[in-house]
Amino acid sequence: MSAAGEGNSAYGRRAFRRSKSHFTDRITADGRDGWPVAAGRYRLVVSRACPWASRAVISRRLLGLDASLSLAIADPVQDDRSWRFTLDPDGRDPVLGIRFLGEAYDRRETGYPGGVSVPAVVDVPTGKLVTNDYQRITLDFATEWTALHREGAPELYPERLRDEIDEVMAEVYEDVNNGVYRAGFATEQAEYEAACSDVFRRLEALSERLARRRYLVGDSITEADIRLFTTLVRFDAVYHGHFKCNRRKLTEFPVLWAYARDLFQTPGFGDTVDFDHIKRHYYQVHTGINPTGIVPLGPDLSGWLTAHHREELGGRPFGDGTPPGPVRPGEEVPAAGRP
Amino acid sequence: MSAAGEGNSAYGRRAFRRSKSHFTDRITADGRDGWPVAAGRYRLVVSRACPWASRAVISRRLLGLDASLSLAIADPVQDDRSWRFTLDPDGRDPVLGIRFLGEAYDRRETGYPGGVSVPAVVDVPTGKLVTNDYQRITLDFATEWTALHREGAPELYPERLRDEIDEVMAEVYEDVNNGVYRAGFATEQAEYEAACSDVFRRLEALSERLARRRYLVGDSITEADIRLFTTLVRFDAVYHGHFKCNRRKLTEFPVLWAYARDLFQTPGFGDTVDFDHIKRHYYQVHTGINPTGIVPLGPDLSGWLTAHHREELGGRPFGDGTPPGPVRPGEEVPAAGRP
Repeated sequence: MSAAGEGNSAYGRRAFRRSKSHFTDRITADGRDGWPVAAGRYRLVVSRACPWASRAVISRRLLGLDASLSLAIADPVQDDRSWRFTLDPDGRDPVLGIRFLGEAYDRRETGYPGGVSVPAVVDVPTGKLVTNDYQRITLDFATEWTALHREGAPELYPERLRDEIDEVMAEVYEDVNNGVYRAGFATEQAEYEAACSDVFRRLEALSERLARRRYLVGDSITEADIRLFTTLVRFDAVYHGHFKCNRRKLTEFPVLWAYARDLFQTPGFGDTVDFDHIKRHYYQVHTGINPTGIVPLGPDLSGWLTAHHREELGGRPFGDGTPPGPVRPGEEVPAAGRP
Repeated sequence: MSAAGEGNSAYGRRAFRRSKSHFTDRITADGRDGWPVAAGRYRLVVSRACPWASRAVISRRLLGLDASLSLAIADPVQDDRSWRFTLDPDGRDPVLGIRFLGEAYDRRETGYPGGVSVPAVVDVPTGKLVTNDYQRITLDFATEWTALHREGAPELYPERLRDEIDEVMAEVYEDVNNGVYRAGFATEQAEYEAACSDVFRRLEALSERLARRRYLVGDSITEADIRLFTTLVRFDAVYHGHFKCNRRKLTEFPVLWAYARDLFQTPGFGDTVDFDHIKRHYYQVHTGINPTGIVPLGPDLSGWLTAHHREELGGRPFGDGTPPGPVRPGEEVPAAGRP
């Protein structure tokens, strides 16, 4: 998840460690934690900058949960009170009526000393945070929220492939999703070099895996693809320079670059990506590694829309399902954030 | 030139300005400034990290001045007394006997308040700095030191092409050589964006110019090529990430990348380049833009040695002359700095 000041607070003398989510209640079909799946009851709070939150934005689109789970988009640049709704009129989320996501945390647990992170699911009637469990939220979207899935929703976490998906996601988490952060927030040369080497060793292995198959597991899009995509789409824009993962750009991995473009051009992926939010968040918030706060003009993003030819590998993007419809009015990514 | 702390001292509230050289005496054939060209009398002090100093290293090799003008190589990482000879036994330059280049400045002018920069030419008998005029030194190598040129030395600044060379070099200086510094040391977003745009606009124009001609002016290598090369060879290693000139990598400009590889593989160019010195200098010295001092593992440098096919454009690299011989013993770039 993305917490306020995760970059700066990492500047102790030890290796970067990602915090565990504190609020791990689950929203389930049977409501056993007290939070039953229900249309219109919850609000998903994200930043489009954050790769962990972006998983949830993509899953919500693919599964058609956008009809029953509303979306709040925080300003990509946090202040010292963390994620805030300064993009909304009067700086307040129009549904929750709060200015800072931290207010929903406070309603859940007064004086909670941990970080305020996205993705977060908030119970609209009480205004309380339900969960910020970034590893669990999307799995529950796929398996617990089924009653609210759209017609034609894909199976993102099918039972029969779950072991393989879990294995791939664990490697991708350690070396890629979190590997880029370990590299970027390293305070010692050796720590950085180990992390950066992990990133590129894993990207090489993933390139081989994806050379002759269109998706990571099975022949359709799964949660594993979503989780790899959210790091790949940020790679050249922020991880390559800002986090010093610069052995190669994503565009210099022919297979991975085609794979990422294929997903980007699939409804539900690229139409959720805001490169403007991504770049401003990383470069302006992590003053410990970019003291000037200057946001680079590059990279050239036009390549994201070029032909990828991955359909030649076969595969059925949505399995027995269908692509999601257009983005809901009001949720379109502004022109400034698109390639 | 590269002066101590040029990055950090630039963090005032105004645009980055490159200092003028203070010591502008010229070493000439007629000795009119009191410094006649003479074999064995002077010592050229450089850092292999510095693009301005590297011009002089390349010119010296191409012209064969290495037989008569000795070379001191400073540690790529300055301390608060600036350039130092910590790579030499006992941390002293073996010819000048000094630990810091600043001592030669002090002998020339006591209490000189300006920066200590490379390239610098020092008079060995007196230990005094003669000149740190980075714009002039190489032109004088080409036109005043002719009595000491090797047999087969190229004409790097031929009379008949001088107007065109000067014009190209002025544009390259403003937008490329110094443009990357204006981008990297910018303290305001607008200042950065203007500089970064200048860099890429000029690189596009140079790509067009070089698409059908092998060298910038005439059909042989001139001073203009040397000056463009010293920035291009650093581009992906430091300017792309550290200075945020990241619209494209050099490797993403097909013409310029082939042009740069052609020169790199020409005796006198690539054999003077130390990527290890380059990366450590920029990333460790400019703590104002890289507070952690961590030096990236990338980029992959192996491409520098790949075929460039520029010989198909014709051209005579050394005109009526010949390539320089091997690098002098003791002046080879260590393996850590080579692709």
